[in-house]
Amino acid sequence: MTDFERQSITLTPIGYVERDADDAGLSGEELRARPARIVLDPSLTDGLLGLEPGSDIVVLFYLHRAASDVLQVHPRGDPNRPLRGVFAVRSPVRPNPIALTTVRIERIEGNVLEVLGLDALDGSPALDIKSYAEGFDTPYLTQ
Amino acid sequence: MTDFERQSITLTPIGYVERDADDAGLSGEELRARPARIVLDPSLTDGLLGLEPGSDIVVLFYLHRAASDVLQVHPRGDPNRPLRGVFAVRSPVRPNPIALTTVRIERIEGNVLEVLGLDALDGSPALDIKSYAEGFDTPYLTQ
Repeated sequence: MTDFERQSITLTPIGYVERDADDAGLSGEELRARPARIVLDPSLTDGLLGLEPGSDIVVLFYLHRAASDVLQVHPRGDPNRPLRGVFAVRSPVRPNPIALTTVRIERIEGNVLEVLGLDALDGSPALDIKSYAEGFDTPYLTQ
Repeated sequence: MTDFERQSITLTPIGYVERDADDAGLSGEELRARPARIVLDPSLTDGLLGLEPGSDIVVLFYLHRAASDVLQVHPRGDPNRPLRGVFAVRSPVRPNPIALTTVRIERIEGNVLEVLGLDALDGSPALDIKSYAEGFDTPYLTQ
């Protein structure tokens, strides 16, 4: 086993998520069904070349309201479900609260992507956008 | 559009990737075909509860050797392919060089996961592990 060093990593958001004010309080599934906007830092707009309406992308965003010191949770917050480790679920609670969701681009205007399928809250920092790729995004042994 | 603030985010790796010495110099595809180990910070081992051999997980890792100031690349480094934005490809070159790959757990021993399908280099900091979930990891409108 290697010596364990926990050197910290500093990231700068590439942009932020914007949602309509009346999206507040909706569940993740409800949020996904409504359009959201990813507003990129304008200096990064050249990085969108090749994306277009209909493109499927994976969005990494920071869960800026999630606690992160808990290691086991009841899935979906249901106390009847046995505890599971945070690495075995998709709970927002995790040591590095980064979420990832595959979304569909509906429209692009300059540095703003309008997408469908995103469960990020208004104001969430976006960390990365990647083209969806079956080779990386489906279970390895089924490929 | 929101006022654009780029407040930085600091993350601490949850662990590191270990590979055999003779994996050095292999391509991403070759790396994926060989087992790799994710050595978690021992204080986070409780977060693995519920994972087992055969589980498909998404691994987020930091590309600690990737440059990050380039916004357009030729896909797969092939100059014959037209330039694309880094957000439209899976190139390691991107503003926040976080990679994500779906891998299969082969074995778990304490804080060490042996996995297949991981294209991370030896020493890569691991940022998160999530259970693979079709709902988040397949294109939104096909669900």
